[in-house]
Amino acid sequence: MSTTTPKADPFRPAARVAGQRQDVWSIVNEAAAASPVQPIVNMGQGFFGYNPPKFALDAAKEALDKVDCNQYSPTKGRPRLKKAIAAAYSKSFGRELDPETEVTITTGANEGMLSAFMAFIEPGDEVIIFEPFFDQYISNIEMPGGTIRYVPLLPPKDGAVKTSSASHWTIDFEQLEKTINSKTKMIVLNSPHNPVGKVMTREELERIGQLAVNHNIIILSDEVYDRLYYVPFTRIATLSPELYERTLTVGSAGKAFYATGWRVGYLIGPPHLIKYVAAAHTRICYSSVSPLQEASAVAFEKADAEGFWEESRNEMQGKIRRFCEIFDELQIPYSDPEGGYFVLANMSSVKLPQDYPFPPHVAHRPRDFKLAWFLIKEVGVAAIPPTEFYTDENAHIAEDYLRFAVCKEDHVLETAKERLRGLKKYIVRSE
Amino acid sequence: MSTTTPKADPFRPAARVAGQRQDVWSIVNEAAAASPVQPIVNMGQGFFGYNPPKFALDAAKEALDKVDCNQYSPTKGRPRLKKAIAAAYSKSFGRELDPETEVTITTGANEGMLSAFMAFIEPGDEVIIFEPFFDQYISNIEMPGGTIRYVPLLPPKDGAVKTSSASHWTIDFEQLEKTINSKTKMIVLNSPHNPVGKVMTREELERIGQLAVNHNIIILSDEVYDRLYYVPFTRIATLSPELYERTLTVGSAGKAFYATGWRVGYLIGPPHLIKYVAAAHTRICYSSVSPLQEASAVAFEKADAEGFWEESRNEMQGKIRRFCEIFDELQIPYSDPEGGYFVLANMSSVKLPQDYPFPPHVAHRPRDFKLAWFLIKEVGVAAIPPTEFYTDENAHIAEDYLRFAVCKEDHVLETAKERLRGLKKYIVRSE
Repeated sequence: MSTTTPKADPFRPAARVAGQRQDVWSIVNEAAAASPVQPIVNMGQGFFGYNPPKFALDAAKEALDKVDCNQYSPTKGRPRLKKAIAAAYSKSFGRELDPETEVTITTGANEGMLSAFMAFIEPGDEVIIFEPFFDQYISNIEMPGGTIRYVPLLPPKDGAVKTSSASHWTIDFEQLEKTINSKTKMIVLNSPHNPVGKVMTREELERIGQLAVNHNIIILSDEVYDRLYYVPFTRIATLSPELYERTLTVGSAGKAFYATGWRVGYLIGPPHLIKYVAAAHTRICYSSVSPLQEASAVAFEKADAEGFWEESRNEMQGKIRRFCEIFDELQIPYSDPEGGYFVLANMSSVKLPQDYPFPPHVAHRPRDFKLAWFLIKEVGVAAIPPTEFYTDENAHIAEDYLRFAVCKEDHVLETAKERLRGLKKYIVRSE
Repeated sequence: MSTTTPKADPFRPAARVAGQRQDVWSIVNEAAAASPVQPIVNMGQGFFGYNPPKFALDAAKEALDKVDCNQYSPTKGRPRLKKAIAAAYSKSFGRELDPETEVTITTGANEGMLSAFMAFIEPGDEVIIFEPFFDQYISNIEMPGGTIRYVPLLPPKDGAVKTSSASHWTIDFEQLEKTINSKTKMIVLNSPHNPVGKVMTREELERIGQLAVNHNIIILSDEVYDRLYYVPFTRIATLSPELYERTLTVGSAGKAFYATGWRVGYLIGPPHLIKYVAAAHTRICYSSVSPLQEASAVAFEKADAEGFWEESRNEMQGKIRRFCEIFDELQIPYSDPEGGYFVLANMSSVKLPQDYPFPPHVAHRPRDFKLAWFLIKEVGVAAIPPTEFYTDENAHIAEDYLRFAVCKEDHVLETAKERLRGLKKYIVRSE
C-alpha cells in the first residue's frame, strides 16, 4: 500500500456542486412559507395547476397494467413513442422524420439538454446563450466543461411605461456576431421564450442560422413551449437543409400535456447528432420512465383527433388575457406573450417602502428580488425575479420585472388579480 | 466578429461518447432478433418478467388522479417518499434516519450513482471498483473526470468443476491495499453483487471499512438488491459511526418493487454527503418522476403489512432453485447466489464447434461472447457474457461464465430449462 497523507477534507465536494448562492426557487418558497397571507397564490414555478387531459391519464393507467411498460425501456426510448413523435412532428418539420434515427427520448427536456451538451462539449468549447436564460442551461453547459458566452435580449425601450408585444424584446445581433469565435461549438435558442414570451421571427432565425452555418456551430433549439404560440411559429431546423443538419430541437411531453412531473422529453435532429445525444443519455440515466413514455406515445397519437393542441393554445391564451386585465387596470406595463405561459410585468412604478425589512439574502440581490419578496409578504402572490436568469453584469436589464406563470386554474388567477389590487397604494407614477 | 477558421468536423462528438465498441446489450439483442429459434427466452437483462405488486400499481393509478402528483416534485424528492424510505430503513440502519437530510431521491439508482460521482469527483481523483462491475459505473465515474482503479473478485478455484456458494468469490485484499493511494477519493461496493450473487460478509466489510477510514475514502455502497438476500446481509454504513459518516448507500424502488422502468432510486447517508448528491442530481435531471415517486412511497408504507419483502425473497429464491435444476442435471457448475437474481454458470465443459460461424464483432471477443451467441442461436436462450464487466486485462477470469437473470415467470424458466437441455450434446467432460 502506498503511503497516504491525511486529506484536509475527505468529504470536500466537487467544485461543480460547491459554493452556490441560494437559488431563486428556495428563496421564493421560503418567503411563501413565512408569509402572513396564507395560502400564497403561487405563480412562481411553471407547473400546471390542473391535471393532464383524460386521454393521457387513461393511457398512463393502462400502461401500468402491462408488464413491459413497467420495465426498462430501450435507452433511446420506446419505439411507439419515437414513432408517435416522428408522426406528430413530420408535418411541421416538412420532412418524414425517421423515428429510429432522428428522434431520441430523454428524462425530461432538462436531461435532454444536458445530454446534448455532454455529447458535443469538450472542456474549453464555448456555448452562446441569450439572456434571460433558463437557469439549468448554466450547470448543464458547465458540467462537461463548456464556457458560456452571454448575449442579452434587449427589452423594449419604453418597457417601463407601455405594454407591448414580447416581440419588442430584440436580439443584439452586433453583440452576437462579436461573441462568435473559433471556439464556439454550440448556440442555444429558446422559442417560444421563457421568461420573455417572445417567439423568434423567421427573419431573426434566418440571421442566427446564417451565422451558425458560416461558423459551423451546432444549434440547440429549446422549443418546449412549441404547442403554445399565439403568432406564427417557425422552427429554425426547418429553414434549410444546412440548418437541419446542425440543429437539435428539444421538446417536452410534460409541457405539452400539462405533466411537468412525468419527465418525458425528446430531441429531434439529424442522425449524426441524435446518435451521440442518445449515447450521452444512456450514460446519464440509462433509460427513461417507461409507463409515462407509453402514455405520452398514446397522447401524441390522440392529440389531433381530440382537438387538444388547439384547445390547449386557446385555453392558455385565455388565461393570459384573463390575468393581464389586472395589469391593464393598475397600468403596470407588461410584455404581451407571443407564446408560452409566462408574463413579464414591469413593476418600476411600484415603490418599495424605504425601511422595509428585507432579509440580507434578498437585500443584497437586485430590485426584482425585493419586489418578489414584497409581493409575497404584502399581497400573497408569488412571482419569480428574472435577474436570476441573467449574469450579474446584465441583471440591471430586468431588475424592474417579475415573471408570472399563468398555467393555473382560472379561480387561482382571479384570486391573484384580487390580491394584486392591493399593490395600488404602492404605485407612484412620475408624470 | 472574430475571424474563425473552418472546423475540421463541426459535429465531432465529445470523447466521452465517441468511439465505443458495440456494447453487450446490443450484441445480445441483435443475436436474439436473428436467431432461428423464436421467440428467444431472454434471461439476459435483469428486468422482471412480471408486474409490480397490486398495491404499488394501485398507488400509481391513484397518484395519476392528483394534480400535484403529475407536476414537478421537489428536486430532492417528494417528502412522502423520503419519509417512507427513512421509516423503511431506520431499523436496518439502527438509527432514526432524518428524511429531510439523510435521504435524497434520484432518477433510478443509476442516475443516483452518477450524482454521487458528480458530487465528489474532480478530474484526477481515483475511484476503486471491483471486477466484475456494473457497466454503467465506468461512464458514471469517467464523466466527472475520475480515474478508475480495478480490483478483481477472485472466482472459486474449482469453479469449472464444482458448484459452490457465491461466497467463494473472494476479495483480493492484497490488491485492494496496493491500489489505494492519496488520490483515492471513493470506493464502490456492490452487495448483493451483480453478477456474482455474493453478499459481502461482515468481516469483509469491516476490512474494507477499516481501509476506507484509514485512508479517508468515501464509500458508495450499491445495495439495489437489498431486499433479496438468502444469507445474513450487512450494510457497511451500519458498522460504526465512522463508516456511517463516509458512506452513501444506494437503493432502488424499481428493483424492490419489480418496476425497473419506473426510474425511482434513492441515496441514504449523512447530511454532509447527501446534500451534494442532491445538488448534483438537481443539475442533471432537475427532479424525478412524480406519480411513480408517490406510488413508491405508498409501496414502502405498505410493504411490511403486505408481507411483501418476505414473499419477494422467498419467491426469488424459489426461482433460483427451480432454474438451477437444469445446471445440476447437466453438471454445469454455477455460483449459488447468496442474494439478487443472477446466476453465473460455468460453461467450460461446453465445446463450441470449431468452425462455428461467429460474426467478427463476436469472434474477436472472449469465449463467453461466443458462448452467449451460440446459446441464442442454437438453443434459443439469451444470457449475458460477464467479461463485458471486466477490463481486458482481467477478462480471462470470467470467459467461461454466462449470467442468467432468473427474475422471470416460472413457465419462462421451465422453457429455458427445456431448451438448455439441448446443450447436452455439446458438453465434453475431460475426466
